[in-house]
Amino acid sequence: MLAPGETQETDLGVIELPADVTPGTVVETHLGEPFEVRRLRGPDLFDHLERTGAPMMPRDIGLVIGHTGVASDDRALDAGTGTGVLAAYLGRLGVEVTTYERDPEFAAVARKNMATAGVTDRVDVRTGDLTDELDTLDGGYDLLTLDTGDAAAVVEHADELLAPGGFLAVYSPFIESARECVEAARSVGLTEVETLETIQRRMDFDDRGSRPSTAGVGHTGYLVFARFLPDIG
Amino acid sequence: MLAPGETQETDLGVIELPADVTPGTVVETHLGEPFEVRRLRGPDLFDHLERTGAPMMPRDIGLVIGHTGVASDDRALDAGTGTGVLAAYLGRLGVEVTTYERDPEFAAVARKNMATAGVTDRVDVRTGDLTDELDTLDGGYDLLTLDTGDAAAVVEHADELLAPGGFLAVYSPFIESARECVEAARSVGLTEVETLETIQRRMDFDDRGSRPSTAGVGHTGYLVFARFLPDIG
Amino acid sequence: MLAPGETQETDLGVIELPADVTPGTVVETHLGEPFEVRRLRGPDLFDHLERTGAPMMPRDIGLVIGHTGVASDDRALDAGTGTGVLAAYLGRLGVEVTTYERDPEFAAVARKNMATAGVTDRVDVRTGDLTDELDTLDGGYDLLTLDTGDAAAVVEHADELLAPGGFLAVYSPFIESARECVEAARSVGLTEVETLETIQRRMDFDDRGSRPSTAGVGHTGYLVFARFLPDIG
Amino acid sequence: MLAPGETQETDLGVIELPADVTPGTVVETHLGEPFEVRRLRGPDLFDHLERTGAPMMPRDIGLVIGHTGVASDDRALDAGTGTGVLAAYLGRLGVEVTTYERDPEFAAVARKNMATAGVTDRVDVRTGDLTDELDTLDGGYDLLTLDTGDAAAVVEHADELLAPGGFLAVYSPFIESARECVEAARSVGLTEVETLETIQRRMDFDDRGSRPSTAGVGHTGYLVFARFLPDIG
Repeated sequence: MLAPGETQETDLGVIELPADVTPGTVVETHLGEPFEVRRLRGPDLFDHLERTGAPMMPRDIGLVIGHTGVASDDRALDAGTGTGVLAAYLGRLGVEVTTYERDPEFAAVARKNMATAGVTDRVDVRTGDLTDELDTLDGGYDLLTLDTGDAAAVVEHADELLAPGGFLAVYSPFIESARECVEAARSVGLTEVETLETIQRRMDFDDRGSRPSTAGVGHTGYLVFARFLPDIG
Repeated sequence: MLAPGETQETDLGVIELPADVTPGTVVETHLGEPFEVRRLRGPDLFDHLERTGAPMMPRDIGLVIGHTGVASDDRALDAGTGTGVLAAYLGRLGVEVTTYERDPEFAAVARKNMATAGVTDRVDVRTGDLTDELDTLDGGYDLLTLDTGDAAAVVEHADELLAPGGFLAVYSPFIESARECVEAARSVGLTEVETLETIQRRMDFDDRGSRPSTAGVGHTGYLVFARFLPDIG
Repeated sequence: MLAPGETQETDLGVIELPADVTPGTVVETHLGEPFEVRRLRGPDLFDHLERTGAPMMPRDIGLVIGHTGVASDDRALDAGTGTGVLAAYLGRLGVEVTTYERDPEFAAVARKNMATAGVTDRVDVRTGDLTDELDTLDGGYDLLTLDTGDAAAVVEHADELLAPGGFLAVYSPFIESARECVEAARSVGLTEVETLETIQRRMDFDDRGSRPSTAGVGHTGYLVFARFLPDIG
Repeated sequence: MLAPGETQETDLGVIELPADVTPGTVVETHLGEPFEVRRLRGPDLFDHLERTGAPMMPRDIGLVIGHTGVASDDRALDAGTGTGVLAAYLGRLGVEVTTYERDPEFAAVARKNMATAGVTDRVDVRTGDLTDELDTLDGGYDLLTLDTGDAAAVVEHADELLAPGGFLAVYSPFIESARECVEAARSVGLTEVETLETIQRRMDFDDRGSRPSTAGVGHTGYLVFARFLPDIG
């Protein structure tokens, strides 16, 4: 991957990307080998971001987006940045994301990853533990996404953090922590609380016929969703 | 649902929404009953759009977004508008959508639904069969989404329709049509062709313990994904 | 259902089953309506046994048999008889079953059900709580099957109850009780401890194509398997 | 594995199994190392039978038994013997099995495997293609199990092969052949025709919590079941 204005040596010669290059342009190396300039798209992030742990998978990122219906210009509060693919996906969709990463080195990598994804203006990676920072936040978020071991402690404040109608989405590999989040969500009056488990399989099509893949796709995480729909009056 | 400036009679009195109302405002009926003004969010579309068939479900919409990594300002070409929830979700995420619906009455409903979803500036609902309109399109789409019985006939032109790096996503309830699309995608040189089947279950948490719901969640559709990554040089 | 030698009134006349009737015989009512005498087969038990709760389903009974490889003339110890379909299936396969049912009324029904299934010589339904009866049993069972809320308390004695090489199978709707059984199995040195969750779906084939049923099949129970393979020497 | 009366050299000395040995006996090698004599149980067959292809898995064998409710002394007709684990399981349950294997070498291995499983008196492995042998069979089978590429050609005669009330079970990795069998079953008037797909996952329990295994379990085969319930009169 190369940013506009950068130069790189390759097996096929030195390539220099003009500062004003646009996607679709063909750029030749000094040896005359053509390369086409392509935009980085969402799934490319999985190849080009530096990993600081297992990133959330495209399917789970998609399910968070589908089940919460987040939209451009929404404000999202995220904890457990990790590699940052969820934050990058949301940023690329026009969502303003504030994301907390406890580990300073991971946070630094995540910031670099947001630059790679081209979303630094949309995604604010903060070093720190969201649980400790709750008092510093104004609330009114449209979406609260959590991928941390102590997510339930944040869910207990989801009613203070979310705008009316806003959604909570927790990613939890383990059933016990999913359950804790469900109980915390109910305890602060969130509604439409549900936990989903998703099994995805590839289909194989060959000359012998069609079937699900014999290579199974394993569990990633449970997704807990809930909504803040306060009564008024 | 009420647009700014509209008036409606309710069981609790007549409510009049000011033209300049903002989300979060509490508006009282003439009987003094308070109502809070809420923004319509993605999942609300399933309650408020008029249905002309079974709409694509949040999970499948999310999977299309997650697996293709579509981003704001991307251009999407869609066929089989139906109720229009996929188009509305994409529009709400800042994607420019051109969507074809063959049935004129369904297309009219879809246009009304795009107004309800607030995405008329982003989503262009065209009456017609995309298969017949291929010659009229310039191509260069970042995303091609198909939810029609004859999707394979369009997939055969996916290489002409997609920008380099762009993605195809076909929703197909039946394995035979999914397979046809896979074969068409391969025949025009698309890569990363894969068909995914997704099983989603709710988890139940009660005093006796935790378990997947005894009410199963059924099949919706296979999702065929592919990518246009042309060789150059 | 009618036993040989019995008489029954039907809408089509009175039918009298000869005492020496064999399957395949056609018997006529006094009005001349023919009925064919059929043997009761395993799946018929679900229609003809009196239920005292949700019976274990054919798939779970089959999985217990498949994963433990129980054979004719094996000895099985079972707790939580309920309707008794598992015991009846095992009895019909030539397994000698001792099964405990805590509820005296349920036990009486189960005894009647064993007569209906034709396995009274193979299945001994005892009224009582297996947890309290452990001291009265000699052990050496080839198979220990448990479908009770306190299964873990019995699993803690599985090493005393099972013959070397014998299998434990616990049916548990809830993950917490499955986990307790796994921990109990490990604590008494059982090996090959594994918990399986099974999702089964019907396929629909019609003129439009082939697909999994849109009516999902829900969760029944987790199956915990383990084996007693003592070290010697 | 050692038969009574046999002698074998091991790393721990020569072991000689008395001709009248019974399970549970401890036998010492000439170096004094103790070995306990254990009965071969169903799941042991997967370690000790010689494979001539991928054997049917315990779960699928179990599902065939559970969904058809086969019983001791039932008569089963089987085609596509392969390694013979299904035939061996059925034989160990007291079922009289006639099984056809087209490949003479595979049939010879299957016969040896039936000896290992101790079911030679119950399982008759015939070399040949069942499709060609239909005229030589009297019918009246309680169970017809098929694991062959051309299963549908046999299903077309299922009504001649099965006893009233008897069951058909076809194992098919591919959806197209499953569908062919469903159509053949319907065409000859079988009832209760259904095709099941089964997804099985292991649960992981560790200190962090409980979850389905991240190592997915892949597809094995579709199971088509049907029943012969002829009208009379």
